[in-house]
Amino acid sequence: MKLLRFGAPGQEKPGLLDADGTIRDLSGVLPDLAGEALSPEGLAKLAALDTSKLPAVSGSPRLGSPVARMTNFVCIGLNYADHAAETGAAIPKEPIIFLKSLGALSGPNDDVEIPAGSTKTDWEVELAIIIGRRAKRVSEAEAMDHVAGYAVCNDVSEREYQIERGGTWDKGKGCDTFGPLGPWLVTKDEVPDPQNLAMFCEVDGERYQDGSTRTMIFGVTKLVSYVSQFITLHPGDVISTGTPPGVGMGQKPPKFLKAGQTIRLGIEGLGEQTQRTVEG
Amino acid sequence: MKLLRFGAPGQEKPGLLDADGTIRDLSGVLPDLAGEALSPEGLAKLAALDTSKLPAVSGSPRLGSPVARMTNFVCIGLNYADHAAETGAAIPKEPIIFLKSLGALSGPNDDVEIPAGSTKTDWEVELAIIIGRRAKRVSEAEAMDHVAGYAVCNDVSEREYQIERGGTWDKGKGCDTFGPLGPWLVTKDEVPDPQNLAMFCEVDGERYQDGSTRTMIFGVTKLVSYVSQFITLHPGDVISTGTPPGVGMGQKPPKFLKAGQTIRLGIEGLGEQTQRTVEG
Repeated sequence: MKLLRFGAPGQEKPGLLDADGTIRDLSGVLPDLAGEALSPEGLAKLAALDTSKLPAVSGSPRLGSPVARMTNFVCIGLNYADHAAETGAAIPKEPIIFLKSLGALSGPNDDVEIPAGSTKTDWEVELAIIIGRRAKRVSEAEAMDHVAGYAVCNDVSEREYQIERGGTWDKGKGCDTFGPLGPWLVTKDEVPDPQNLAMFCEVDGERYQDGSTRTMIFGVTKLVSYVSQFITLHPGDVISTGTPPGVGMGQKPPKFLKAGQTIRLGIEGLGEQTQRTVEG
Repeated sequence: MKLLRFGAPGQEKPGLLDADGTIRDLSGVLPDLAGEALSPEGLAKLAALDTSKLPAVSGSPRLGSPVARMTNFVCIGLNYADHAAETGAAIPKEPIIFLKSLGALSGPNDDVEIPAGSTKTDWEVELAIIIGRRAKRVSEAEAMDHVAGYAVCNDVSEREYQIERGGTWDKGKGCDTFGPLGPWLVTKDEVPDPQNLAMFCEVDGERYQDGSTRTMIFGVTKLVSYVSQFITLHPGDVISTGTPPGVGMGQKPPKFLKAGQTIRLGIEGLGEQTQRTVEG
């Protein structure tokens, strides 16, 4: 299934994309894509619906984040060997965890704000894991039982704030609109091998990132298990798993975003995002 | 006013502590201590109530976090010069920001879980600023207009996870129960000078921290303004402002928590917390 949330910011309704590419309204079936609805039992109920009987949504409504009410927006740093190399960092011995402000979450095609005065805002296409069931210190063997599915994430980052302003990376990762997620939550049954997905990111039509989840250092099962040793994961939580090479910081010379540009990014089987950059 | 939330975890009701020390039930007046209720207008409405007409709550109910539905649990690192020195760190040139998992939030007197296998769980008494109105890139002059009040926070920290496991500090700050907040939100009108509050933390009756907010490096107005440049603050958000000297890591030799101990901490005018440590 491809699950989504549509409507104005803060007023999104749950929906799904049917086999014909039509959005079907799920708001008569469940209040939102959050909590229990994302559990294996909740997803099984949705999978059993006759989608042709659900109201079709006309037009092209705005999409929001495909999940609501998350507790943790976890990100993994330097999780592709080539990306670590381009940033001049060593390959991590164990996963690097940081947290994105939940306020940074936005819809997949919402504008991305360049913070006033920022000169180093950068893109990062990432595979986001969406948690379906609470995970506290789970093993790698148990990890997939806690995963609802996957989505595309743009881990927008301000490199000066992240690296040059002291302290942890969180300072450069949590600005408003720095977390476009979606277009949909693709349930894990449709993604048999999350470690073999092509992924890309283009700015104004020029392709900067052209990678595959195959080159991740720490894979999906390892990350779910690992993060859950430190931070209990709740339904709707996201682990964004790091970015392949080709970020702006890694260009020679570095290239960063400015207002008025178009970012397009996507992952095989998970859909695409398109964002306009605007002055924040 | 001293505002609080009482009841079982996840089912807390809003309340206030009246002049006699009786808890008064606010659930007939507002749904929860969150969002608009924390704005200057929302707090003015509560201040105008005749508390003697609100239902008195009998007994000593459990207290939860005094605010609900926060977006950001921001913490400031190394914000007391003496504490920076005891940890061997340099005095930061600008505030160090990190985020605590929202899942770590707990009531002021709830048990603190020592994570299974942890040997370096530590205490940190901190002044928490509670945001009352959205703050995005506000100046220091404007900062106080966005503050609802203050609370005591124990920024419980696992030093191995925080420092020795790679990446940012977030790994050692977001375990379940690592964020006791309360007992109450004391509105700012009752705290004329937040930079002159005595604070302490004891473990099993021995006083380890005995400081004052006077020795903060970056004060309340600076921190609200500074954080809001990077992360937009929302009503109910917390900025926990760092800890004075005397943490376990700073003892010679270092001392850490184990299950079966009692932590007692407090800040002048803001009340006290008492936690038992248990195996997590």
